[in-house]
Amino acid sequence: MSLKHVDEIPAQAVQAGTGTTRQVLIGPDEGPNFALRRFVMQPGGGMPAHTNTVEHEQYVLRGQATIGIGEETIQVRAGHVVFIPAGAPHWYHAHGNEPFEFLCVVPNKEDRIEIVGR
Amino acid sequence: MSLKHVDEIPAQAVQAGTGTTRQVLIGPDEGPNFALRRFVMQPGGGMPAHTNTVEHEQYVLRGQATIGIGEETIQVRAGHVVFIPAGAPHWYHAHGNEPFEFLCVVPNKEDRIEIVGR
Repeated sequence: MSLKHVDEIPAQAVQAGTGTTRQVLIGPDEGPNFALRRFVMQPGGGMPAHTNTVEHEQYVLRGQATIGIGEETIQVRAGHVVFIPAGAPHWYHAHGNEPFEFLCVVPNKEDRIEIVGR
Repeated sequence: MSLKHVDEIPAQAVQAGTGTTRQVLIGPDEGPNFALRRFVMQPGGGMPAHTNTVEHEQYVLRGQATIGIGEETIQVRAGHVVFIPAGAPHWYHAHGNEPFEFLCVVPNKEDRIEIVGR
């Protein structure tokens, strides 16, 4: 078993994003089937449209954002649950007065990320 | 893709627990590899010691609890990240003045639950 607090876990800048960091809360070294990560996006930041080869199961912890998934655009806040299928183009734009924070769970499978036109 | 808010998702009482409900935020019908659930335990409630045949990756959203895992006892609050390996006996006791809420991710594999002596 393991116990950590999110505030103690190092955050890495996400190179493809703006004002965006990622923390691996439980990685493939520990969880046999899937990884739990937290993303934090500063207001005005986010990520451009991209695809992943793995699905995302997400839970919004704090803040507000607009997310584009395929042809749809959604507004999210704390308590929203988002499923993004593998291969679906998606982007994030954080707004409001506080950081946009969400958990994102992915399977322990090879993930190829490709930036696509927006 | 899908978008839901946690407040709109039905909650079921957990029969083996006390003052404990479970919501399936993203189930096996939607997520191909793992399921995202939220548990809410009222202060004084929780679950007796039990084992699962699948691992748990958990993130505490709100409240406070004592969790026993194997021979260890831990205190958790918002932002704590807990990994419980498959087969490890564990129990929960919620306390404090507000509900204890946490996300719990499990793989889409058969889960046999067994209550064990505490």
